[in-house]
Amino acid sequence: MKLLSFTCNGRDSWGAVLGDGVVDLGLAFAGQYPLLQDFIGSADFDRREALLAGRQPDLRLSDITPLPVITRPEKIVLLVRNYLDHHNEVVAAGLKREVPQFPPLFLRVWRSQIGHEAPIVRPAISEQLDWEGELAVIIGKGGRHIAESEALSHVAGYACYNDASVREWQFHAQQIAAGKNFVGTGGFGPWMVTADEIADPSQLKLQTRLNGELVQDSHTSNMIFGVPRLINYISTIFDLVPGDVIVTGTPAGTGWTLKPPRFLRPSDVVEVEIEKIGVLRNSVIDEQAAS
Amino acid sequence: MKLLSFTCNGRDSWGAVLGDGVVDLGLAFAGQYPLLQDFIGSADFDRREALLAGRQPDLRLSDITPLPVITRPEKIVLLVRNYLDHHNEVVAAGLKREVPQFPPLFLRVWRSQIGHEAPIVRPAISEQLDWEGELAVIIGKGGRHIAESEALSHVAGYACYNDASVREWQFHAQQIAAGKNFVGTGGFGPWMVTADEIADPSQLKLQTRLNGELVQDSHTSNMIFGVPRLINYISTIFDLVPGDVIVTGTPAGTGWTLKPPRFLRPSDVVEVEIEKIGVLRNSVIDEQAAS
Repeated sequence: MKLLSFTCNGRDSWGAVLGDGVVDLGLAFAGQYPLLQDFIGSADFDRREALLAGRQPDLRLSDITPLPVITRPEKIVLLVRNYLDHHNEVVAAGLKREVPQFPPLFLRVWRSQIGHEAPIVRPAISEQLDWEGELAVIIGKGGRHIAESEALSHVAGYACYNDASVREWQFHAQQIAAGKNFVGTGGFGPWMVTADEIADPSQLKLQTRLNGELVQDSHTSNMIFGVPRLINYISTIFDLVPGDVIVTGTPAGTGWTLKPPRFLRPSDVVEVEIEKIGVLRNSVIDEQAAS
Repeated sequence: MKLLSFTCNGRDSWGAVLGDGVVDLGLAFAGQYPLLQDFIGSADFDRREALLAGRQPDLRLSDITPLPVITRPEKIVLLVRNYLDHHNEVVAAGLKREVPQFPPLFLRVWRSQIGHEAPIVRPAISEQLDWEGELAVIIGKGGRHIAESEALSHVAGYACYNDASVREWQFHAQQIAAGKNFVGTGGFGPWMVTADEIADPSQLKLQTRLNGELVQDSHTSNMIFGVPRLINYISTIFDLVPGDVIVTGTPAGTGWTLKPPRFLRPSDVVEVEIEKIGVLRNSVIDEQAAS
Protein backbone atom coordinates (compact mmCIF):
# COMPACT_ATOMS: atom_id res chain seq x y z
CA MET A 1 0.00 0.00 0.00
CA LYS A 2 1.11 3.54 -0.73
CA LEU A 3 0.46 6.10 2.01
CA LEU A 4 1.14 9.82 1.79
CA SER A 5 0.61 13.18 3.44
CA PHE A 6 -0.86 16.01 1.40
CA THR A 7 -2.64 19.31 1.41
CA CYS A 8 -5.79 19.96 -0.62
CA ASN A 9 -8.04 23.02 -0.62
CA GLY A 10 -6.18 24.48 2.34
CA ARG A 11 -6.56 21.40 4.52
CA ASP A 12 -3.67 19.12 5.48
CA SER A 13 -4.44 15.43 5.47
CA TRP A 14 -3.06 11.99 4.67
CA GLY A 15 -4.31 8.95 2.87
CA ALA A 16 -3.77 5.93 0.67
CA VAL A 17 -3.10 5.96 -3.05
CA LEU A 18 -5.64 3.92 -5.05
CA GLY A 19 -4.88 3.94 -8.78
CA ASP A 20 -4.79 7.62 -9.77
CA GLY A 21 -6.82 8.62 -6.73
CA VAL A 22 -6.40 9.11 -3.00
CA VAL A 23 -8.53 7.80 -0.16
CA ASP A 24 -8.62 10.66 2.37
CA LEU A 25 -7.92 8.72 5.55
CA GLY A 26 -7.05 11.87 7.50
CA LEU A 27 -10.70 12.86 7.05
CA ALA A 28 -12.00 9.37 7.78
CA PHE A 29 -9.99 9.20 11.00
CA ALA A 30 -10.35 12.88 11.94
CA GLY A 31 -9.62 13.35 15.62
CA GLN A 32 -8.16 9.88 15.97
CA TYR A 33 -5.08 10.08 13.75
CA PRO A 34 -4.39 13.70 12.84
CA LEU A 35 -1.14 12.77 11.08
CA LEU A 36 0.06 9.74 9.13
CA GLN A 37 2.66 9.20 11.84
CA ASP A 38 -0.16 8.72 14.37
CA PHE A 39 -1.75 6.06 12.17
CA ILE A 40 1.32 3.97 11.45
CA GLY A 41 1.91 3.47 15.17
CA SER A 42 -1.65 2.23 15.74
CA ALA A 43 -3.33 -1.16 15.64
CA ASP A 44 -5.43 0.11 12.71
CA PHE A 45 -2.25 0.28 10.61
CA ASP A 46 -1.97 -3.51 10.83
CA ARG A 47 -5.50 -3.92 9.47
CA ARG A 48 -5.16 -1.26 6.79
CA GLU A 49 -6.13 -3.59 3.97
CA ALA A 50 -9.44 -4.40 5.64
CA LEU A 51 -10.04 -0.70 6.37
CA LEU A 52 -9.63 0.16 2.69
CA ALA A 53 -11.72 -2.74 1.34
CA GLY A 54 -14.51 -1.42 -0.84
CA ARG A 55 -13.50 2.23 -0.52
CA GLN A 56 -13.33 4.54 -3.50
CA PRO A 57 -10.87 7.42 -3.89
CA ASP A 58 -12.04 10.75 -2.47
CA LEU A 59 -9.58 12.87 -4.45
CA ARG A 60 -7.57 12.68 -7.61
CA LEU A 61 -3.80 12.39 -7.18
CA SER A 62 -3.48 15.32 -9.59
CA ASP A 63 -5.58 17.52 -7.28
CA ILE A 64 -3.50 17.16 -4.14
CA THR A 65 -0.21 18.79 -3.18
CA PRO A 66 2.08 16.22 -1.57
CA LEU A 67 3.66 17.07 1.77
CA PRO A 68 6.72 15.35 3.19
CA VAL A 69 5.61 11.72 3.65
CA ILE A 70 5.91 12.10 7.43
CA THR A 71 5.31 15.76 8.09
CA ARG A 72 6.71 16.07 11.60
CA PRO A 73 8.96 13.16 12.46
CA GLU A 74 10.18 13.41 16.00
CA LYS A 75 13.59 12.30 14.77
CA ILE A 76 15.23 12.19 11.38
CA VAL A 77 18.48 10.25 11.71
CA LEU A 78 20.71 10.29 8.64
CA LEU A 79 23.81 8.44 7.56
CA VAL A 80 26.95 9.88 6.06
CA ARG A 81 29.11 7.68 3.80
CA ASN A 82 27.02 4.55 4.15
CA TYR A 83 27.57 3.41 0.56
CA LEU A 84 30.91 1.90 -0.37
CA ASP A 85 30.75 3.49 -3.85
CA HIS A 86 30.20 6.94 -2.28
CA HIS A 87 32.93 6.36 0.30
CA ASN A 88 35.34 5.62 -2.53
CA GLU A 89 34.43 8.78 -4.46
CA VAL A 90 34.81 10.89 -1.32
CA VAL A 91 38.31 9.52 -0.80
CA ALA A 92 39.07 10.11 -4.50
CA ALA A 93 37.86 13.71 -4.04
CA GLY A 94 40.65 14.23 -1.51
CA LEU A 95 39.04 13.65 1.90
CA LYS A 96 41.08 11.31 4.08
CA ARG A 97 38.51 8.89 5.42
CA GLU A 98 38.56 5.27 6.57
CA VAL A 99 35.69 2.91 5.80
CA PRO A 100 33.37 3.49 8.78
CA GLN A 101 33.46 0.87 11.53
CA PHE A 102 30.21 2.19 12.99
CA PRO A 103 27.24 3.90 11.32
CA PRO A 104 28.11 7.64 11.14
CA LEU A 105 24.98 9.55 12.19
CA PHE A 106 23.74 13.09 12.05
CA LEU A 107 20.31 14.66 12.48
CA ARG A 108 17.96 16.79 10.41
CA VAL A 109 14.94 18.73 11.72
CA TRP A 110 11.47 18.19 10.24
CA ARG A 111 11.09 21.85 9.37
CA SER A 112 13.81 21.47 6.71
CA GLN A 113 11.66 19.01 4.74
CA ILE A 114 9.67 19.44 1.53
CA GLY A 115 7.23 17.18 -0.29
CA HIS A 116 7.26 15.66 -3.74
CA GLU A 117 7.05 18.34 -6.46
CA ALA A 118 7.82 21.16 -4.01
CA PRO A 119 10.89 23.21 -4.90
CA ILE A 120 14.24 22.71 -3.24
CA VAL A 121 15.34 26.14 -2.03
CA ARG A 122 18.86 27.21 -2.94
CA PRO A 123 20.00 29.49 -0.07
CA ALA A 124 21.11 32.98 -1.02
CA ILE A 125 24.47 32.30 0.64
CA SER A 126 25.23 29.18 -1.40
CA GLU A 127 26.48 28.30 -4.84
CA GLN A 128 27.06 24.69 -3.86
CA LEU A 129 23.65 23.13 -3.37
CA ASP A 130 23.98 19.42 -4.11
CA TRP A 131 21.69 16.39 -4.45
CA GLU A 132 21.79 13.14 -2.47
CA GLY A 133 19.32 10.43 -3.45
CA GLU A 134 18.61 8.09 -0.53
CA LEU A 135 16.32 5.38 0.78
CA ALA A 136 14.22 6.52 3.76
CA VAL A 137 13.06 3.98 6.35
CA ILE A 138 9.95 4.89 8.32
CA ILE A 139 9.59 3.35 11.77
CA GLY A 140 6.17 1.89 12.59
CA LYS A 141 6.78 0.14 15.86
CA GLY A 142 9.04 2.02 18.25
CA GLY A 143 11.40 0.64 20.81
CA ARG A 144 14.91 0.56 22.16
CA HIS A 145 17.67 -2.02 21.92
CA ILE A 146 16.04 -3.61 18.88
CA ALA A 147 17.90 -6.75 17.76
CA GLU A 148 18.97 -6.96 14.11
CA SER A 149 16.89 -10.09 13.73
CA GLU A 150 13.77 -8.17 14.81
CA ALA A 151 14.57 -4.87 13.14
CA LEU A 152 12.59 -5.16 9.90
CA SER A 153 9.41 -5.88 11.87
CA HIS A 154 9.71 -2.33 13.25
CA VAL A 155 9.58 -0.76 9.77
CA ALA A 156 6.27 0.66 8.55
CA GLY A 157 7.53 1.44 5.06
CA TYR A 158 10.04 3.00 2.70
CA ALA A 159 10.23 6.20 0.67
CA CYS A 160 12.66 8.24 -1.42
CA TYR A 161 14.65 11.07 0.16
CA ASN A 162 16.76 13.81 -1.33
CA ASP A 163 19.13 14.93 1.43
CA ALA A 164 20.00 18.10 -0.50
CA SER A 165 23.14 19.58 1.01
CA VAL A 166 24.65 23.05 1.15
CA ARG A 167 28.25 22.03 0.69
CA GLU A 168 30.02 25.25 1.73
CA TRP A 169 28.20 25.15 5.06
CA GLN A 170 28.56 21.38 5.41
CA PHE A 171 32.32 21.89 5.33
CA HIS A 172 32.38 24.91 7.68
CA ALA A 173 33.19 22.48 10.46
CA GLN A 174 33.83 18.82 11.07
CA GLN A 175 30.21 18.49 12.14
CA ILE A 176 28.05 18.61 9.00
CA ALA A 177 24.63 19.44 10.46
CA ALA A 178 24.86 23.08 9.32
CA GLY A 179 24.87 22.12 5.64
CA LYS A 180 22.13 19.53 6.09
CA ASN A 181 19.35 21.51 7.70
CA PHE A 182 18.62 24.49 5.50
CA VAL A 183 14.93 25.31 5.12
CA GLY A 184 13.51 23.70 1.99
CA THR A 185 16.21 21.11 1.36
CA GLY A 186 14.95 17.72 2.58
CA GLY A 187 12.85 16.15 -0.20
CA PHE A 188 10.74 13.27 1.13
CA GLY A 189 8.27 11.44 -1.08
CA PRO A 190 6.36 10.83 -3.15
CA TRP A 191 4.74 8.39 -0.71
CA MET A 192 5.73 5.53 1.54
CA VAL A 193 5.35 1.97 0.32
CA THR A 194 4.45 -0.28 3.22
CA ALA A 195 7.06 -2.80 4.26
CA ASP A 196 4.98 -5.84 3.25
CA GLU A 197 5.73 -4.92 -0.38
CA ILE A 198 9.52 -4.72 0.13
CA ALA A 199 10.75 -7.94 1.64
CA ASP A 200 14.42 -6.92 1.53
CA PRO A 201 15.46 -3.24 1.56
CA SER A 202 18.99 -4.24 0.52
CA GLN A 203 17.75 -5.33 -2.92
CA LEU A 204 16.59 -2.08 -4.49
CA LYS A 205 17.95 -0.16 -7.45
CA LEU A 206 18.47 3.53 -6.60
CA GLN A 207 18.95 6.22 -9.25
CA THR A 208 19.12 10.00 -9.24
CA ARG A 209 18.56 12.04 -12.39
CA LEU A 210 19.40 15.70 -12.93
CA ASN A 211 17.30 17.20 -15.73
CA GLY A 212 16.78 13.66 -17.00
CA GLU A 213 20.46 12.76 -16.97
CA LEU A 214 21.50 9.86 -14.76
CA VAL A 215 23.87 11.13 -12.03
CA GLN A 216 23.53 8.42 -9.37
CA ASP A 217 23.08 4.81 -10.43
CA SER A 218 23.50 2.39 -7.58
CA HIS A 219 21.83 -0.27 -5.52
CA THR A 220 20.99 -0.53 -1.83
CA SER A 221 23.16 -3.67 -1.64
CA ASN A 222 26.11 -1.23 -1.67
CA MET A 223 25.23 0.02 1.81
CA ILE A 224 28.04 -0.51 4.29
CA PHE A 225 25.51 -0.88 7.13
CA GLY A 226 22.20 -2.41 6.13
CA VAL A 227 18.81 -1.43 7.51
CA PRO A 228 18.72 -4.06 10.31
CA ARG A 229 22.13 -2.98 11.64
CA LEU A 230 21.14 0.69 11.40
CA ILE A 231 17.97 0.12 13.42
CA ASN A 232 19.93 -1.89 15.97
CA TYR A 233 22.62 0.79 16.34
CA ILE A 234 20.26 3.75 16.36
CA SER A 235 17.88 2.16 18.87
CA THR A 236 20.80 1.67 21.27
CA ILE A 237 20.96 5.46 21.51
CA PHE A 238 17.44 6.71 20.83
CA ASP A 239 14.06 5.40 21.86
CA LEU A 240 12.43 5.08 18.47
CA VAL A 241 8.77 6.03 18.07
CA PRO A 242 6.31 5.63 15.18
CA GLY A 243 7.10 8.05 12.37
CA ASP A 244 10.80 8.34 13.11
CA VAL A 245 12.76 8.35 9.89
CA ILE A 246 16.15 6.83 9.10
CA VAL A 247 17.72 8.18 5.92
CA THR A 248 20.24 5.58 4.94
CA GLY A 249 22.93 7.51 3.06
CA THR A 250 23.69 8.33 -0.55
CA PRO A 251 25.59 6.31 -3.17
CA ALA A 252 28.25 7.57 -5.60
CA GLY A 253 27.45 10.41 -7.98
CA THR A 254 27.03 13.47 -5.79
CA GLY A 255 27.80 16.78 -7.49
CA TRP A 256 30.70 17.96 -5.34
CA THR A 257 32.80 14.85 -6.07
CA LEU A 258 32.50 15.21 -9.86
CA LYS A 259 35.41 16.67 -11.82
CA PRO A 260 34.60 19.45 -12.36
CA PRO A 261 32.07 19.71 -9.50
CA ARG A 262 28.48 20.31 -10.48
CA PHE A 263 25.82 21.99 -8.37
CA LEU A 264 22.11 22.72 -8.53
CA ARG A 265 20.81 25.87 -10.19
CA PRO A 266 17.36 27.42 -10.34
CA SER A 267 14.97 25.49 -12.62
CA ASP A 268 17.00 22.28 -12.39
CA VAL A 269 14.88 19.20 -11.77
CA VAL A 270 16.14 16.36 -9.55
CA GLU A 271 14.50 12.96 -9.52
CA VAL A 272 15.27 10.21 -7.02
CA GLU A 273 13.89 6.86 -8.14
CA ILE A 274 13.97 3.70 -6.05
CA GLU A 275 12.79 0.33 -7.26
CA LYS A 276 9.38 -0.75 -5.91
CA ILE A 277 8.83 2.74 -4.43
CA GLY A 278 8.61 5.37 -7.17
CA VAL A 279 10.03 8.74 -8.15
CA LEU A 280 10.56 11.78 -5.91
CA ARG A 281 10.77 14.87 -8.13
CA ASN A 282 11.80 18.37 -7.03
CA SER A 283 12.78 21.43 -8.99
CA VAL A 284 15.14 24.10 -7.64
CA ILE A 285 14.43 27.76 -6.93
CA ASP A 286 16.49 30.54 -5.45
CA GLU A 287 15.73 31.61 -1.89
CA GLN A 288 14.85 35.11 -3.08
CA ALA A 289 12.17 33.66 -5.36
CA ALA A 290 10.86 31.40 -2.57
CA SER A 291 10.30 34.13 0.00
CA MET B 1 11.36 35.87 36.39
CA LYS B 2 12.04 32.16 36.73
CA LEU B 3 9.86 29.86 34.60
CA LEU B 4 9.93 26.08 34.68
CA SER B 5 8.17 22.92 33.53
CA PHE B 6 7.24 20.32 36.12
CA THR B 7 5.07 17.39 37.00
CA CYS B 8 3.01 17.21 40.18
CA ASN B 9 0.50 14.57 41.27
CA GLY B 10 0.63 12.92 37.85
CA ARG B 11 -0.09 16.11 35.91
CA ASP B 12 2.49 17.89 33.72
CA SER B 13 2.42 21.67 33.91
CA TRP B 14 4.60 24.76 33.92
CA GLY B 15 4.77 27.91 35.95
CA ALA B 16 6.69 30.71 37.60
CA VAL B 17 8.85 30.44 40.70
CA LEU B 18 7.78 32.79 43.49
CA GLY B 19 10.04 32.50 46.54
CA ASP B 20 9.91 28.84 47.57
CA GLY B 21 6.64 28.30 45.70
CA VAL B 22 5.36 27.90 42.17
CA VAL B 23 2.48 29.67 40.44
CA ASP B 24 0.84 26.97 38.30
CA LEU B 25 0.46 28.86 35.03
CA GLY B 26 -0.14 25.69 33.05
CA LEU B 27 -3.37 25.32 35.03
CA ALA B 28 -4.25 29.03 34.77
CA PHE B 29 -3.76 28.96 30.99
CA ALA B 30 -5.14 25.44 30.44
CA GLY B 31 -6.09 24.99 26.81
CA GLN B 32 -4.32 28.16 25.73
CA TYR B 33 -0.69 27.36 26.47
CA PRO B 34 -0.32 23.63 27.12
CA LEU B 35 3.47 23.92 27.31
CA LEU B 36 5.87 26.61 28.47
CA GLN B 37 7.16 26.81 24.89
CA ASP B 38 3.67 27.86 23.76
CA PHE B 39 3.61 30.66 26.33
CA ILE B 40 7.02 32.17 25.61
CA GLY B 41 6.07 32.71 21.97
CA SER B 42 2.87 34.57 22.90
CA ALA B 43 2.01 38.20 23.57
CA ASP B 44 1.16 37.18 27.15
CA PHE B 45 4.83 36.40 27.72
CA ASP B 46 5.63 40.07 27.27
CA ARG B 47 3.14 41.03 29.98
CA ARG B 48 4.13 38.25 32.38
CA GLU B 49 4.85 40.62 35.25
CA ALA B 50 1.33 42.05 35.10
CA LEU B 51 -0.15 38.55 34.83
CA LEU B 52 1.61 37.49 38.03
CA ALA B 53 0.85 40.62 40.03
CA GLY B 54 -0.95 39.75 43.25
CA ARG B 55 -0.83 35.97 42.64
CA GLN B 56 0.18 33.57 45.38
CA PRO B 57 2.05 30.30 44.79
CA ASP B 58 -0.17 27.28 44.12
CA LEU B 59 2.48 24.71 44.96
CA ARG B 60 5.65 24.42 46.97
CA LEU B 61 8.87 24.05 45.00
CA SER B 62 9.66 21.03 47.16
CA ASP B 63 6.44 19.31 46.03
CA ILE B 64 7.02 19.43 42.28
CA THR B 65 9.26 17.30 40.09
CA PRO B 66 11.07 19.50 37.56
CA LEU B 67 10.93 18.50 33.90
CA PRO B 68 13.36 19.73 31.24
CA VAL B 69 12.80 23.50 31.16
CA ILE B 70 11.41 23.23 27.64
CA THR B 71 9.96 19.75 27.43
CA ARG B 72 9.68 19.33 23.65
CA PRO B 73 11.84 21.84 21.81
CA GLU B 74 11.39 21.52 18.09
CA LYS B 75 15.13 21.98 17.73
CA ILE B 76 18.04 21.67 20.13
CA VAL B 77 21.13 23.04 18.40
CA LEU B 78 24.40 22.49 20.24
CA LEU B 79 27.93 23.73 19.85
CA VAL B 80 31.12 21.73 19.94
CA ARG B 81 34.36 23.41 20.98
CA ASN B 82 32.90 26.88 21.44
CA TYR B 83 35.10 27.77 24.41
CA LEU B 84 38.72 28.65 23.81
CA ASP B 85 39.77 26.98 27.07
CA HIS B 86 38.03 23.74 26.01
CA HIS B 87 39.48 23.94 22.50
CA ASN B 88 42.94 24.13 24.04
CA GLU B 89 42.39 21.11 26.29
CA VAL B 90 41.05 19.09 23.34
CA VAL B 91 44.21 19.86 21.38
CA ALA B 92 46.33 19.01 24.43
CA ALA B 93 44.44 15.68 24.66
CA GLY B 94 45.77 14.80 21.22
CA LEU B 95 43.01 15.78 18.77
CA LYS B 96 44.32 17.82 15.86
CA ARG B 97 41.88 20.69 15.64
CA GLU B 98 42.06 24.28 14.43
CA VAL B 99 40.22 27.07 16.23
CA PRO B 100 36.79 27.03 14.52
CA GLN B 101 36.17 29.69 11.89
CA PHE B 102 32.44 29.00 11.98
CA PRO B 103 30.20 27.76 14.80
CA PRO B 104 30.41 23.93 14.76
CA LEU B 105 26.85 22.63 15.20
CA PHE B 106 25.18 19.35 15.98
CA LEU B 107 21.68 18.41 17.10
CA ARG B 108 20.09 16.64 20.04
CA VAL B 109 16.51 15.30 20.20
CA TRP B 110 14.14 16.36 22.98
CA ARG B 111 13.54 12.79 24.05
CA SER B 112 17.14 12.61 25.32
CA GLN B 113 16.49 15.32 27.90
CA ILE B 114 15.98 15.12 31.66
CA GLY B 115 14.97 17.70 34.24
CA HIS B 116 16.69 19.07 37.32
CA GLU B 117 17.20 16.36 39.98
CA ALA B 118 16.37 13.55 37.52
CA PRO B 119 19.11 10.96 37.14
CA ILE B 120 21.49 10.93 34.19
CA VAL B 121 21.37 7.41 32.78
CA ARG B 122 24.71 5.71 32.16
CA PRO B 123 24.12 3.39 29.18
CA ALA B 124 24.89 -0.28 29.69
CA ILE B 125 27.32 -0.14 26.75
CA SER B 126 29.38 2.73 28.17
CA GLU B 127 32.10 3.25 30.73
CA GLN B 128 32.84 6.75 29.45
CA LEU B 129 29.85 8.89 30.38
CA ASP B 130 31.10 12.46 30.76
CA TRP B 131 29.72 15.82 31.92
CA GLU B 132 29.56 19.08 29.95
CA GLY B 133 28.22 22.14 31.78
CA GLU B 134 26.77 24.67 29.34
CA LEU B 135 24.64 27.79 29.01
CA ALA B 136 21.32 27.13 27.23
CA VAL B 137 19.65 29.94 25.29
CA ILE B 138 15.87 29.65 24.84
CA ILE B 139 14.37 31.36 21.82
CA GLY B 140 11.23 33.42 22.46
CA LYS B 141 10.70 35.18 19.16
CA GLY B 142 11.37 33.03 16.11
CA GLY B 143 12.65 34.08 12.74
CA ARG B 144 15.24 33.58 10.06
CA HIS B 145 18.23 35.64 9.01
CA ILE B 146 18.34 37.38 12.38
CA ALA B 147 21.00 40.10 12.51
CA GLU B 148 23.52 39.99 15.34
CA SER B 149 22.35 43.43 16.46
CA GLU B 150 18.79 42.11 16.87
CA ALA B 151 19.65 38.64 18.16
CA LEU B 152 19.29 39.15 21.91
CA SER B 153 15.75 40.49 21.44
CA HIS B 154 14.83 36.98 20.19
CA VAL B 155 15.92 35.34 23.47
CA ALA B 156 13.24 34.47 26.03
CA GLY B 157 15.68 33.34 28.68
CA TYR B 158 18.63 31.29 29.80
CA ALA B 159 19.11 28.03 31.70
CA CYS B 160 21.80 25.52 32.65
CA TYR B 161 22.42 22.45 30.50
CA ASN B 162 24.46 19.33 31.07
CA ASP B 163 25.23 17.93 27.61
CA ALA B 164 26.26 14.59 29.10
CA SER B 165 28.17 12.64 26.48
CA VAL B 166 28.86 8.97 25.85
CA ARG B 167 32.45 9.34 24.72
CA GLU B 168 33.01 5.91 23.14
CA TRP B 169 30.02 6.45 20.87
CA GLN B 170 30.84 10.10 20.27
CA PHE B 171 34.15 8.93 18.78
CA HIS B 172 32.69 6.05 16.74
CA ALA B 173 32.64 8.43 13.78
CA GLN B 174 33.60 11.93 12.83
CA GLN B 175 29.97 12.94 13.38
CA ILE B 176 29.37 13.06 17.14
CA ALA B 177 25.55 12.90 17.28
CA ALA B 178 25.60 9.22 18.35
CA GLY B 179 27.33 10.03 21.64
CA LYS B 180 25.16 13.05 22.30
CA ASN B 181 21.65 11.65 22.08
CA PHE B 182 21.40 8.75 24.51
CA VAL B 183 18.15 8.57 26.42
CA GLY B 184 18.46 10.29 29.80
CA THR B 185 21.58 12.36 29.15
CA GLY B 186 20.54 15.96 28.44
CA GLY B 187 20.11 17.75 31.76
CA PHE B 188 18.16 21.00 31.34
CA GLY B 189 17.19 23.15 34.31
CA PRO B 190 16.48 24.00 36.98
CA TRP B 191 14.43 26.77 35.37
CA MET B 192 14.86 29.50 32.77
CA VAL B 193 15.65 33.02 33.93
CA THR B 194 14.01 35.50 31.58
CA ALA B 195 16.33 37.57 29.43
CA ASP B 196 15.43 40.88 31.11
CA GLU B 197 17.46 39.71 34.12
CA ILE B 198 20.58 38.88 32.09
CA ALA B 199 21.64 41.90 30.08
CA ASP B 200 24.75 40.25 28.67
CA PRO B 201 25.03 36.45 28.33
CA SER B 202 28.79 36.79 27.76
CA GLN B 203 29.33 37.93 31.35
CA LEU B 204 28.38 34.87 33.37
CA LYS B 205 30.52 32.66 35.58
CA LEU B 206 29.97 28.95 34.73
CA GLN B 207 31.04 26.12 37.03
CA THR B 208 30.55 22.38 37.10
CA ARG B 209 31.02 20.34 40.25
CA LEU B 210 31.36 16.57 40.55
CA ASN B 211 30.41 15.35 44.03
CA GLY B 212 31.09 18.88 45.25
CA GLU B 213 34.53 19.13 43.65
CA LEU B 214 35.03 21.89 41.09
CA VAL B 215 35.77 20.33 37.66
CA GLN B 216 34.82 23.17 35.29
CA ASP B 217 35.48 26.77 36.31
CA SER B 218 35.07 29.18 33.45
CA HIS B 219 33.15 32.16 32.17
CA THR B 220 30.92 32.70 29.17
CA SER B 221 33.30 35.42 27.96
CA ASN B 222 35.53 32.51 26.86
CA MET B 223 33.07 31.56 24.13
CA ILE B 224 34.62 31.71 20.67
CA PHE B 225 31.24 32.60 19.15
CA GLY B 226 28.97 34.65 21.40
CA VAL B 227 25.20 34.32 21.61
CA PRO B 228 24.40 37.04 19.00
CA ARG B 229 26.70 35.43 16.42
CA LEU B 230 25.28 31.98 17.18
CA ILE B 231 21.71 33.16 16.66
CA ASN B 232 22.72 34.90 13.44
CA TYR B 233 24.51 31.82 12.08
CA ILE B 234 21.88 29.30 13.18
CA SER B 235 18.99 31.38 11.84
CA THR B 236 20.66 31.45 8.41
CA ILE B 237 20.04 27.69 8.27
CA PHE B 238 16.98 27.04 10.41
CA ASP B 239 13.76 28.96 10.85
CA LEU B 240 13.79 29.43 14.61
CA VAL B 241 10.54 29.10 16.55
CA PRO B 242 9.63 29.80 20.18
CA GLY B 243 11.08 27.19 22.49
CA ASP B 244 14.02 26.30 20.27
CA VAL B 245 17.13 25.82 22.37
CA ILE B 246 20.73 26.70 21.60
CA VAL B 247 23.24 24.98 23.87
CA THR B 248 26.34 27.07 23.62
CA GLY B 249 29.20 24.65 24.25
CA THR B 250 31.25 23.57 27.23
CA PRO B 251 34.40 25.11 28.73
CA ALA B 252 37.57 23.32 29.85
CA GLY B 253 37.37 20.58 32.46
CA THR B 254 35.54 17.72 30.78
CA GLY B 255 36.38 14.26 32.12
CA TRP B 256 37.87 12.68 29.01
CA THR B 257 40.57 15.36 28.68
CA LEU B 258 41.82 14.93 32.24
CA LYS B 259 44.98 12.93 32.87
CA PRO B 260 44.01 10.29 33.78
CA PRO B 261 40.51 10.57 32.27
CA ARG B 262 37.63 10.58 34.69
CA PHE B 263 34.08 9.44 33.96
CA LEU B 264 30.72 9.37 35.70
CA ARG B 265 29.72 6.43 37.86
CA PRO B 266 26.45 5.49 39.52
CA SER B 267 25.59 7.71 42.51
CA ASP B 268 27.88 10.52 41.33
CA VAL B 269 26.26 13.95 41.52
CA VAL B 270 26.93 16.61 38.87
CA GLU B 271 26.04 20.25 39.41
CA VAL B 272 26.15 22.93 36.70
CA GLU B 273 25.98 26.41 38.17
CA ILE B 274 25.71 29.58 36.12
CA GLU B 275 25.75 33.06 37.60
CA LYS B 276 22.33 34.74 37.77
CA ILE B 277 20.61 31.46 36.79
CA GLY B 278 21.11 28.82 39.45
CA VAL B 279 22.22 25.22 39.90
CA LEU B 280 21.22 22.23 37.76
CA ARG B 281 21.80 19.06 39.77
CA ASN B 282 21.65 15.49 38.49
CA SER B 283 22.83 12.23 39.97
CA VAL B 284 23.90 9.25 37.87
CA ILE B 285 22.34 5.80 37.66
CA ASP B 286 23.06 2.77 35.56
CA GLU B 287 20.71 1.96 32.70
CA GLN B 288 19.84 -1.36 34.29
CA ALA B 289 18.65 0.44 37.44
CA ALA B 290 16.70 2.98 35.38
CA SER B 291 14.66 0.50 33.37
